Amino acid sequence: MEPKTYVEASVELERILRSEGQLAPQRAQEVQNLAVQLPLRELIALVERCNSVRAALLLRLLPRELSIAVFDALDFAQQADLIDELGNQDVFEYFDALEPEDRVSLLDELPAEIADRLLRSLDKPDRDITGVVLGYSKGSVGRRMSPEVPDLYPEMTAGEAMARLKETAADLETIYTLPIVRKDRRLVGVVSFREVFQAKDDALLGDLMKEAVYAMANADAEETARWFLPLDILALPVVDESQRLVGLLMWDDAIDIVEEADSEDSARSGGAEALQQPYMSTPLLKLVRSRIVWLLVLALSALLTVQVLSVFEDTLAAAVVLSLFIPLLTGTGGNTGNQAATTVTRALALGDIRKNDLGSVMWRELRVGMLLGAVLGGLGFVLASVVYGLSIGLVIGSTLFLVCSMSATVGGAMPLIAKAVGADPAVFSNPFISTFCDATGLIIYFLIAKTVLGL
Amino acid sequence: MEPKTYVEASVELERILRSEGQLAPQRAQEVQNLAVQLPLRELIALVERCNSVRAALLLRLLPRELSIAVFDALDFAQQADLIDELGNQDVFEYFDALEPEDRVSLLDELPAEIADRLLRSLDKPDRDITGVVLGYSKGSVGRRMSPEVPDLYPEMTAGEAMARLKETAADLETIYTLPIVRKDRRLVGVVSFREVFQAKDDALLGDLMKEAVYAMANADAEETARWFLPLDILALPVVDESQRLVGLLMWDDAIDIVEEADSEDSARSGGAEALQQPYMSTPLLKLVRSRIVWLLVLALSALLTVQVLSVFEDTLAAAVVLSLFIPLLTGTGGNTGNQAATTVTRALALGDIRKNDLGSVMWRELRVGMLLGAVLGGLGFVLASVVYGLSIGLVIGSTLFLVCSMSATVGGAMPLIAKAVGADPAVFSNPFISTFCDATGLIIYFLIAKTVLGL
Repeated sequence: MEPKTYVEASVELERILRSEGQLAPQRAQEVQNLAVQLPLRELIALVERCNSVRAALLLRLLPRELSIAVFDALDFAQQADLIDELGNQDVFEYFDALEPEDRVSLLDELPAEIADRLLRSLDKPDRDITGVVLGYSKGSVGRRMSPEVPDLYPEMTAGEAMARLKETAADLETIYTLPIVRKDRRLVGVVSFREVFQAKDDALLGDLMKEAVYAMANADAEETARWFLPLDILALPVVDESQRLVGLLMWDDAIDIVEEADSEDSARSGGAEALQQPYMSTPLLKLVRSRIVWLLVLALSALLTVQVLSVFEDTLAAAVVLSLFIPLLTGTGGNTGNQAATTVTRALALGDIRKNDLGSVMWRELRVGMLLGAVLGGLGFVLASVVYGLSIGLVIGSTLFLVCSMSATVGGAMPLIAKAVGADPAVFSNPFISTFCDATGLIIYFLIAKTVLGL
Repeated sequence: MEPKTYVEASVELERILRSEGQLAPQRAQEVQNLAVQLPLRELIALVERCNSVRAALLLRLLPRELSIAVFDALDFAQQADLIDELGNQDVFEYFDALEPEDRVSLLDELPAEIADRLLRSLDKPDRDITGVVLGYSKGSVGRRMSPEVPDLYPEMTAGEAMARLKETAADLETIYTLPIVRKDRRLVGVVSFREVFQAKDDALLGDLMKEAVYAMANADAEETARWFLPLDILALPVVDESQRLVGLLMWDDAIDIVEEADSEDSARSGGAEALQQPYMSTPLLKLVRSRIVWLLVLALSALLTVQVLSVFEDTLAAAVVLSLFIPLLTGTGGNTGNQAATTVTRALALGDIRKNDLGSVMWRELRVGMLLGAVLGGLGFVLASVVYGLSIGLVIGSTLFLVCSMSATVGGAMPLIAKAVGADPAVFSNPFISTFCDATGLIIYFLIAKTVLGL
């Protein structure tokens, strides 16, 4: 069991950090004493919950090695927020301690001028290796890869390779996945450290290596991370157009890439932009900004429903009872559409569906929608008939059936259409589909009502 | 560049697999020739898109080593579907090749009788080690850990440790993260293989090791995976109540755990259950089943809106114009609530918010909601005043303001309340919140309308 004191220390520390305006010197000592009792993961969680002033304060009070480890584990956006609060000297040290590819991701979050100053603070070799990563475009594999690779050739023996690695390990991010290159740096294979370690000393790397699974440096980072992670390998060799080894995509960076993408998809499925930093440390106005644009776009497209309804105002006036079912019908349409869109968006993200599957996805969703509509429509028919009479029952039942069929098909198609035109599938997703289904559903509703009720 | 032929081979292979009813013998040869041209990841993707009959067919046509690698990479639910289609001998071989913890996850998806037969097909040592994992409850760290751990003690030198690892590596899932135990198997520290490799031969493990970050075997698997992955370590030692080492949670299993949880959250935020297997290979009725229950629950709760509206039926009859804004107002309320709920659910999943943050989250969301409401309400007031006159403008504007404030607060609170009562935060999420906000929003709307319009 973890000792109770560490949980208590954490609660106490958070209380101090949250309550005080200014931190008195004796409090600083107390904070320090509490902080070093916490496991690393608890410290990281604590810093993630603080605004940047408090987080900077806490980082400064930690022993240097610990504060570097905490800083390293933060989201890039929060690191960027912290840069402003920390002294130059601290910042340079933290920056220097990051892996080259993590430095670049942090630079991407910073104003050009500060990014420049940070880059200039590195010594020449570090600046050069960071420059390799900076040379690739945002969103590419090259931008997220580790540029530190070993020099191993097929003619080397296992023993020579081990000796070489022992010398150079300090300059490498990993020694566990070993790409093998020819003299011209073209990738010819890959071998795991474990295999080299277990091989006879005089075994040739050329005989031990397997055909390499690899990625192109200019390939899409998210797509690559998605197929790479399930293969359970620790690092993926990255090559340029001439098949020359330029880096390794590390498993931990691949996880970051996937998590960023999932957070973005999740936010967009709720009709907002991703925060890219922990909720509690996000300033209030940043929360508002992440939501207001989509809310306005959605509200403006909802004016469509006002238009549709005003077209049918006479029908509504003639049978006020029809207005009672408006939220039920639009809600059900929206829900059916959302279910389909969420499923398809996730499947697209995971690579389970491809762009040219539009036809088969729509055909699947149409059938699913009809089945769902049959159940809901049947139920709606019975309930509405009992309470409001047979003709209203007929209107509600058939509207539900058609709305479900239509919404599922549209909801399933939308993410694929978005992808086809180069937009983020998650953007055209749930709330947008709700609004679309609302308007279309209302038209279906009133056309059926006019026909059945003879209005 | 990857040769064009492999993409062509993939398209051709999928065409054959999809089009044919029965596979003629000469076609089988063709399938085989095409399949071996594909990179492993492409083969996996292809199998994930096939129904179980086709997938089994393809697996049987692959060289044994390759088909085992493909089977290993599939989701557990799809593996389970395949068990029925594959011959006993194939199944036993695939099952035997899985890591013990992956065997257990697959067993969890199978009927007891088949699970039993599979377990009995293992030899004694494999059955025993699988039994260790089976002994922990579902959803716990123990159920997902690798039970294979090395025997390393603080008194050993680096040289001795390397020799020991060389002997035993075949029985270990990883040699890269090395937990160190006392003679009574209590965990005392951890050292990375890399540090042992670079150390002097006579350095003691006790001096090289660091304090271990570890997890309890009965801790929640998702929570543990969430804090473990950002630490960028390859495996997390797992201990029992007496601090004795029982296994290692591997990074790749932690990724699976997080991905399963994210897929579930994503599906539930869209009001459905997670499929747990790729979309294209999911049977149609399974898609319907994953959605119908929530759709019914939501439709039934939407009857609440019918009730609310029928209470105000006289008001509606007196001013039909009010009904025009119903979808706009309920839609905006739903969207605001969804934005808040999605953000908070994601933050909870990532561990950025804790259960007892309910107060601060509601206070944040109330302020965000009021700011959003001020913008939308102001806009709504102006637009509605211009088209429908000042009093309608006043009704719409103030309703929007109140609905946004209320929806954001409720949307932010719901996931936390769900968590507090032990439910999945994502279950009480978007569609449920929409329905709740619809009904409450309508009440606010008509109360304001009655007051302002004097109905």
